Amino acid sequence: MKAKFITLDGIDGAGKSTNLNTIRNWFEKHQLPVLFTREPGGTPIGEALRELLLNPATHANARTETLMIFAARQQHLDEVIKPALEKGIHVVSDRFTDATFAYQGGGRGLPLTDITILENWVQQGFQPDLTLLLDVPLTVAQQRLSQNSHPDRFEQLDAAFFEHTRAVYLERAAATPRRYSVIDSSLNLQDVAQQINQGLAQLFGLDS
Amino acid sequence: MKAKFITLDGIDGAGKSTNLNTIRNWFEKHQLPVLFTREPGGTPIGEALRELLLNPATHANARTETLMIFAARQQHLDEVIKPALEKGIHVVSDRFTDATFAYQGGGRGLPLTDITILENWVQQGFQPDLTLLLDVPLTVAQQRLSQNSHPDRFEQLDAAFFEHTRAVYLERAAATPRRYSVIDSSLNLQDVAQQINQGLAQLFGLDS
Repeated sequence: MKAKFITLDGIDGAGKSTNLNTIRNWFEKHQLPVLFTREPGGTPIGEALRELLLNPATHANARTETLMIFAARQQHLDEVIKPALEKGIHVVSDRFTDATFAYQGGGRGLPLTDITILENWVQQGFQPDLTLLLDVPLTVAQQRLSQNSHPDRFEQLDAAFFEHTRAVYLERAAATPRRYSVIDSSLNLQDVAQQINQGLAQLFGLDS
Repeated sequence: MKAKFITLDGIDGAGKSTNLNTIRNWFEKHQLPVLFTREPGGTPIGEALRELLLNPATHANARTETLMIFAARQQHLDEVIKPALEKGIHVVSDRFTDATFAYQGGGRGLPLTDITILENWVQQGFQPDLTLLLDVPLTVAQQRLSQNSHPDRFEQLDAAFFEHTRAVYLERAAATPRRYSVIDSSLNLQDVAQQINQGLAQLFGLDS
């Protein structure tokens, strides 16, 4: 079996961290070798770029930010993701290029066609085998974030920013439905886990 | 008079640092407002990226490196170079995109067409009004570097690397001669300064 590249994506508050455990459990249950990684990051240079990007003092404009994200992604692909896949190890990445389209495109307003140019430059056709897209209405995401350790996250950014971000995620899933499993992440944990397990099972042709 | 964007480029050991003073003196003599800047760098995020790029522990591959350089360049253009030019201040940059073609393309072997894609993405047609290209044979550059504080610079990198780098600089100057002033930097300081002054004088329609 060719190793699979799976990405987990969605707006802040959609429950990515919580549901990574569901994915971990699924791979454990099926005893499949898997590497968990994240973006931006995944390599020493990628993590250094992530720190720069997340530092509020950085002031990178949307175009600079997008180039930095793709720089981290290039190294991540070449140094981590592709070598693991070549060794037969499945890879699960917490965020990937869909997030760039959604956040830098939808959120920050960079033309999506500009992002496609960099996607082609870096990935040269390489795409995830499956993207688990955790989707929640903005109000649910907002409520969840206000309950955890980032109570001011939504106050810092415009609600419109996240509406646009969510819209781009959903548009992309609608445009290439075969690659996406859109998960209704507003449901309870057990029902969300069931959807994730089904998405994985379908990809691998195994039981959920 | 529309403010001019001038870049200074050439292989290590070609004498860029020394000749920046010649350029400074020329602008002073003609009492023209000028901003000196450098690449990679020129902004806080650009300087942070520069530090990452120059750190030997970084291990960025040529494609990652190129994306990081263009990220720094995007912010440099948007935050420093274009705003200065719009205020009527001339800008002199120690290195610019020619260096990316020469080093990452010629030296590290990235296809030049890939660099052109990023050049178009970031610059959208924006180009220097004049590039002062300091050109020296490799043996001269090597001799100069061995006399200064970087005696092991050339031992670290292949001589072929610098031959390829120099070749790309010269090819680019030959392809668009109107934008370049190729300076024979193997001559003595005074003769080099004279060539630089002539290049500047021609651009501005002033005496050298």
